[in-house]
Amino acid sequence: MALFSADIRSLDDLYLHTLQDIYYAENQIVKALPKMIEKAGDGPLRDGFESHLDQTRGHVARLEKVFGMLGEKPKGVTCPAIDGIIEEAEDIAGDIADQDVMDAALAAAAQAVEHYEITRYGTLVAWSEELGRPELSQILQQTLDEEKAADRKLTELAEARLNREA
Amino acid sequence: MALFSADIRSLDDLYLHTLQDIYYAENQIVKALPKMIEKAGDGPLRDGFESHLDQTRGHVARLEKVFGMLGEKPKGVTCPAIDGIIEEAEDIAGDIADQDVMDAALAAAAQAVEHYEITRYGTLVAWSEELGRPELSQILQQTLDEEKAADRKLTELAEARLNREA
Repeated sequence: MALFSADIRSLDDLYLHTLQDIYYAENQIVKALPKMIEKAGDGPLRDGFESHLDQTRGHVARLEKVFGMLGEKPKGVTCPAIDGIIEEAEDIAGDIADQDVMDAALAAAAQAVEHYEITRYGTLVAWSEELGRPELSQILQQTLDEEKAADRKLTELAEARLNREA
Repeated sequence: MALFSADIRSLDDLYLHTLQDIYYAENQIVKALPKMIEKAGDGPLRDGFESHLDQTRGHVARLEKVFGMLGEKPKGVTCPAIDGIIEEAEDIAGDIADQDVMDAALAAAAQAVEHYEITRYGTLVAWSEELGRPELSQILQQTLDEEKAADRKLTELAEARLNREA
């Protein structure tokens, strides 16, 4: 949210800014996921990343719809948070030779991404209501539900690995 | 997690690295919270930040205990994710004149911080079990529970604001 904070005077401004922040973030995730898919071992983690890439493209489209309903052009603002999260993911995964350890690192990195999205969409859903725009809240809630489901699925994968080893 | 990823060969290495990542993050949060307290309006948000600052110092101490139980010296590694999240928080809040809008921005920023911690502690709890160290899992779970409670409290504050306006 680095560029235009001097222009934020109202909750409407803050809302639009947060929408631009998550729009940038979703687009960065679309770029990052193919690299994570390449590094993931065959199996449920890779499958999960692949279906989440499709889902993420849908989240971008949903945000573009929300921009349109606000009479705004879709636009991203640089989001140092998601840049940092993705930088960590790429760096940590860069040099791990063991595929099981790599998968554990990739899954943890993906959960950090999910949690960033969960917090931002949670905020946007609440602010949509506060601004009297339940129709926007409803659209963003769909994405929020999908991000939460993706996070749960990653937790289940970690539990399955634990049970396999036990 | 930028510095030592070339050394990560096992889940033990990844675990220690993630511990160092969240140790750095908690210490950055201890530094950032006083600035957020200064900017928050009087009332429950400021009170919440103040008690969370005490809690965060306790989280640092708990991590130092875990390092000790692993026979390791407490050490942080730069975490671009938390740096990005805090940078966004400080930047977005920098120029908002209206106190209600400022408080909404601060609460959203704090929730982004909480969610980063929730994901990392969630991962560490799972990996503690996977590594056969339930005594570490138990300590880290206490912090995880406190971070989740802090996140819920912030959601309740947002809901209270909405009900006040409705």
